[in-house]
Amino acid sequence: MNSVNQYSFRDDYSEGAHPRILEAIARYNNGQVEGYGMDPYCQEAIRLIRQETGAMKAAVHFVSGGTQANLLILSAILRPYEAVIAAGSAHISVHETGSIEATGHKIILIDTETGKLTPHLIAPILDRHQDEHRVKPKAVFISQTTECGTIYTKTELENLSRYCRKNDLWLYVDGARLGAALTSPSNDLSLQDLAQMVDVFYIGGTKNGALFGEAIVITNEALQSNFRYIMKQKGGLLAKSRFFGIQFTEMFRDGLYYELGQHANFCARELSEGLQVAGYTFDRPPASNQLFPVFPDQVIEELQNKYTFHIWGPCNKSESVVRLVTSWATSTSAIHAFLASL
Amino acid sequence: MNSVNQYSFRDDYSEGAHPRILEAIARYNNGQVEGYGMDPYCQEAIRLIRQETGAMKAAVHFVSGGTQANLLILSAILRPYEAVIAAGSAHISVHETGSIEATGHKIILIDTETGKLTPHLIAPILDRHQDEHRVKPKAVFISQTTECGTIYTKTELENLSRYCRKNDLWLYVDGARLGAALTSPSNDLSLQDLAQMVDVFYIGGTKNGALFGEAIVITNEALQSNFRYIMKQKGGLLAKSRFFGIQFTEMFRDGLYYELGQHANFCARELSEGLQVAGYTFDRPPASNQLFPVFPDQVIEELQNKYTFHIWGPCNKSESVVRLVTSWATSTSAIHAFLASL
Amino acid sequence: MNSVNQYSFRDDYSEGAHPRILEAIARYNNGQVEGYGMDPYCQEAIRLIRQETGAMKAAVHFVSGGTQANLLILSAILRPYEAVIAAGSAHISVHETGSIEATGHKIILIDTETGKLTPHLIAPILDRHQDEHRVKPKAVFISQTTECGTIYTKTELENLSRYCRKNDLWLYVDGARLGAALTSPSNDLSLQDLAQMVDVFYIGGTKNGALFGEAIVITNEALQSNFRYIMKQKGGLLAKSRFFGIQFTEMFRDGLYYELGQHANFCARELSEGLQVAGYTFDRPPASNQLFPVFPDQVIEELQNKYTFHIWGPCNKSESVVRLVTSWATSTSAIHAFLASL
Amino acid sequence: MNSVNQYSFRDDYSEGAHPRILEAIARYNNGQVEGYGMDPYCQEAIRLIRQETGAMKAAVHFVSGGTQANLLILSAILRPYEAVIAAGSAHISVHETGSIEATGHKIILIDTETGKLTPHLIAPILDRHQDEHRVKPKAVFISQTTECGTIYTKTELENLSRYCRKNDLWLYVDGARLGAALTSPSNDLSLQDLAQMVDVFYIGGTKNGALFGEAIVITNEALQSNFRYIMKQKGGLLAKSRFFGIQFTEMFRDGLYYELGQHANFCARELSEGLQVAGYTFDRPPASNQLFPVFPDQVIEELQNKYTFHIWGPCNKSESVVRLVTSWATSTSAIHAFLASL
Repeated sequence: MNSVNQYSFRDDYSEGAHPRILEAIARYNNGQVEGYGMDPYCQEAIRLIRQETGAMKAAVHFVSGGTQANLLILSAILRPYEAVIAAGSAHISVHETGSIEATGHKIILIDTETGKLTPHLIAPILDRHQDEHRVKPKAVFISQTTECGTIYTKTELENLSRYCRKNDLWLYVDGARLGAALTSPSNDLSLQDLAQMVDVFYIGGTKNGALFGEAIVITNEALQSNFRYIMKQKGGLLAKSRFFGIQFTEMFRDGLYYELGQHANFCARELSEGLQVAGYTFDRPPASNQLFPVFPDQVIEELQNKYTFHIWGPCNKSESVVRLVTSWATSTSAIHAFLASL
Repeated sequence: MNSVNQYSFRDDYSEGAHPRILEAIARYNNGQVEGYGMDPYCQEAIRLIRQETGAMKAAVHFVSGGTQANLLILSAILRPYEAVIAAGSAHISVHETGSIEATGHKIILIDTETGKLTPHLIAPILDRHQDEHRVKPKAVFISQTTECGTIYTKTELENLSRYCRKNDLWLYVDGARLGAALTSPSNDLSLQDLAQMVDVFYIGGTKNGALFGEAIVITNEALQSNFRYIMKQKGGLLAKSRFFGIQFTEMFRDGLYYELGQHANFCARELSEGLQVAGYTFDRPPASNQLFPVFPDQVIEELQNKYTFHIWGPCNKSESVVRLVTSWATSTSAIHAFLASL
Repeated sequence: MNSVNQYSFRDDYSEGAHPRILEAIARYNNGQVEGYGMDPYCQEAIRLIRQETGAMKAAVHFVSGGTQANLLILSAILRPYEAVIAAGSAHISVHETGSIEATGHKIILIDTETGKLTPHLIAPILDRHQDEHRVKPKAVFISQTTECGTIYTKTELENLSRYCRKNDLWLYVDGARLGAALTSPSNDLSLQDLAQMVDVFYIGGTKNGALFGEAIVITNEALQSNFRYIMKQKGGLLAKSRFFGIQFTEMFRDGLYYELGQHANFCARELSEGLQVAGYTFDRPPASNQLFPVFPDQVIEELQNKYTFHIWGPCNKSESVVRLVTSWATSTSAIHAFLASL
Repeated sequence: MNSVNQYSFRDDYSEGAHPRILEAIARYNNGQVEGYGMDPYCQEAIRLIRQETGAMKAAVHFVSGGTQANLLILSAILRPYEAVIAAGSAHISVHETGSIEATGHKIILIDTETGKLTPHLIAPILDRHQDEHRVKPKAVFISQTTECGTIYTKTELENLSRYCRKNDLWLYVDGARLGAALTSPSNDLSLQDLAQMVDVFYIGGTKNGALFGEAIVITNEALQSNFRYIMKQKGGLLAKSRFFGIQFTEMFRDGLYYELGQHANFCARELSEGLQVAGYTFDRPPASNQLFPVFPDQVIEELQNKYTFHIWGPCNKSESVVRLVTSWATSTSAIHAFLASL
């Protein structure tokens, strides 16, 4: 926990839930309903998500966290000898304790500058994997926003989608920060676009104001069957599922999901512009709610008295990259104070 | 969902959360805290649970559901070739979609009358499993209350515990309904007793008034190391863990957990006494919040117009066993109406 | 190892390989050929096996042992949440150290008298497994001969096959002792019959005179794709595969496989008739090369001075069932000596 | 298979078994012995291997192939959340179809020039893997010779061994080509040295003249318990184990194993010297029985009429690296013919 005087730019899950989420939960808490996703609140949330994504035949399921979503989806869509291709920075490879390998699947890693995959980067992997002495590449994992804070443009995702379909690869998007991606000032990709271009993705709730919860959206009908079996088997089917349904209904009934993403992006822009004015550079250009400025190590040391954030890695002998994350709950006054303290 | 006019005795997770749980969540929702179990609310809940169980050195972890708790614990304590012994009625074998086998482990099943295991029932299994052509039995899974609604007495658990320790078997208790067990009128086993006798157990929140959540308590220090790695790898480490901490703190700070169990037991007793007065018998004697009365099939058909419940199985040509479950939220007027309608 | 004076009726793999197998290996040992199943000897063996089974489009693969065959096949044909149904006596459940569970799949066990499954026994399992809280039964495992020494008649297998196809269940036959089954005096089922009725099976070499090796025959084309990936991944793809090809070619080019089975059955009949003449009864009627006579415990003790065999289990206070196994290498003089010593 | 006129330098498993191996098998084929590794031939081979390695308390087990050895060992010594560190060129990552991931474990890859790991290369990985959001590095996989044909010197392995012990990492050596390594002209590491420096390794038979078979040697007593359970569970425990015992006894009773490696190295040196004389360079300096010369693409095309070999990859627009492998069975006349044809 932060000490009393510290403000955190460390991540987007250190805050609680948005007040409207709690109000909705309190409103619909009473009364008996079926569990395990069969309750009317989940049904309503599914209806709203299908409408919002334009994927009227999508299968929609709710799970409690992103690692769970990733491992459920990939273990559902891959046969035992099939592998998933991902960027070297991919959350599934770096920060999920081998969760995908624990379901039996290899992640084939590609080094990238930006956290983004392209057909050009994937092609050599397909060339190399041609017989049964190697795994069979069958899925491509990307995240939007990426773990580097970048976002795929519409054209980039179109190219990737076309390539995957041509090469019989499932395309899966980890949307832990999809709220921040969709509302980024530099974004030109709608939720409907994304839903059409990929086979399966999830809409992250935890990092965008929910108490907990991610909505898995399986648009490719070939991948829909028996997903609930996988969910139950891996401990991902919540008994009191109404709490998923209530939250996602609240998020999507009038645009709250986007409002929260917009706020995170607004704060990020305030922060990045202030840093630029103050003369700081960025390891990669600001694009969403994760910023990667370069600070002198001495500045970092001083900042750490008042703020918590991740030190991403050294740049050179006297400077390092840090990660600053804003969220739906970040206060603009905290940003101004941070900038003032530089 | 039930139709408007139906009342459910089907299970203990079809209700929402207890109002005090929601109030506590609202009270402590604001502000930044660390995630993944490192927040001060989890720390406080851990302190209370250690105190309540008397296991001051126990490792305590929170997860979102019972299937998750079971698979995390068993995959953590078993080596690949080791197996768990369980009753044929065990939830891990019957109702969790092969979750334990999916982590690589065999469940060795024992047929029982009552859902309870004894040294006498386990001994022949140890006799038969002596070399590397068979799995190595290494853990014993029991549930309290059992899936048959029965509860282990203090003497029964003592015997089982002694046997397990003598034979180098881990003893694990699934406490999905531990609240109902501890407050059953026929119970003589305290939470402290249980904590001393077993190696690991979990205290069920979902079925006893929580929004979601189970508290895993690892009393055996030999089993504590690196459990968080397993949790993260299997998708069981929640980011906004404060919501676990807040709930379990509320449950254990002044005895709410027991109150809720007591209410479920009180309702069950009202119901079972009424049924006995009305001349109905039970497939197994009432002991906790799951009742298994025998009804004529014609009565069942009529009841189904107003009530939902599980039909457990046929007794004979014209009668069947049904399962009636009461919970922390069951209304006594519903019980009286049910009894009146017979 | 047996002491010098002991003769073993313990199993059918304690002998070496048939001399013709070794001669063939020596004959074709020299020269360079491709490995991993692509050599001409494997191709010739595949041609012969297709011809012999009548399954001209079958995929045929060679692996080194029965446990490997079982786990490769079942992990290839089951999705993660699917389970295999088997008799309680099934080798995969009792004697393979949880190998199937280690690939993630539950075995649903059925108690049987004879080691044989029937539609009548399977039906209740399908009735009970209807939703995602339980595994999905998807394959049926049988062995021919069974672990009880019994064999399925043509009618029995037809019924089972029809039932499985109607209920969308794969039917798989473990043929570790298929040689003994096909040549049993009480057999009325041809290899061609079997190949038509089931989806996949293996022809056991190890227990019928081979140095090592089993031939997996996948008759159902829907199950054939990418099997070599599974083989390689699980360590079942042998580099110098010619030694599989040479052995199975020798076995099937002129009927050696059947001759060896016939000898085992001939010896078993000599032994069983002698036992009957001597007044002994059998736990189950003799049908193949595994006999299960009942002996007084005192007789057993004396026999153990000169012979090794498995004691299957106690019958009553003074008698036990033993298992006596004959093989392609059993000497008739050993049988006569055994009978004389009773 | 090669066409009639082609000679293969593609690998070291395209030949059959050395004649002495087949003679020994024929000699000891008859008679009854126990199976599953309990036969006297295995016991004698174990005695010889312990003596030869100087590891008198080592546990020694025999399996049929290298992929099987690798997956058995790594799944035996790693807990579910633990990972193995390996070079990017490691066979377990590149050519075993995700076998290690299929047992649930991540391979952490390190790019190398030479296929060899050093403490310097490993250290940053340990630095980065510090909490439960990442796998726990616990084993280091190396191969001797490496997949690049290089060999670890005594000093290099000493450094690596010291580092691993200091950092609580198991050190495991894949010895598929250990015969070629130990008898390489540039080798200064004895089998005894190696056995002392590592925790577990295997002595490859398949690529050094055996019919099939690898000898796993577990020198670290902490890793020895219950290994046979893992072997049986994964299909790696051969019934007629005498054939392992006979082969490894023959290999080590009078030095045959080394003779065969020497021949492979002798042929490789003939070949590499001839290539150097002819003016060809090498992608990496020749060190064992795998050579990586650089040929003009036009030369490669012509060579392919008479020879088979792997094209390792392009060097530049007109040249490529090829891999030429010699073995215990390579004929010097084939080498001279090859050199003459350049």
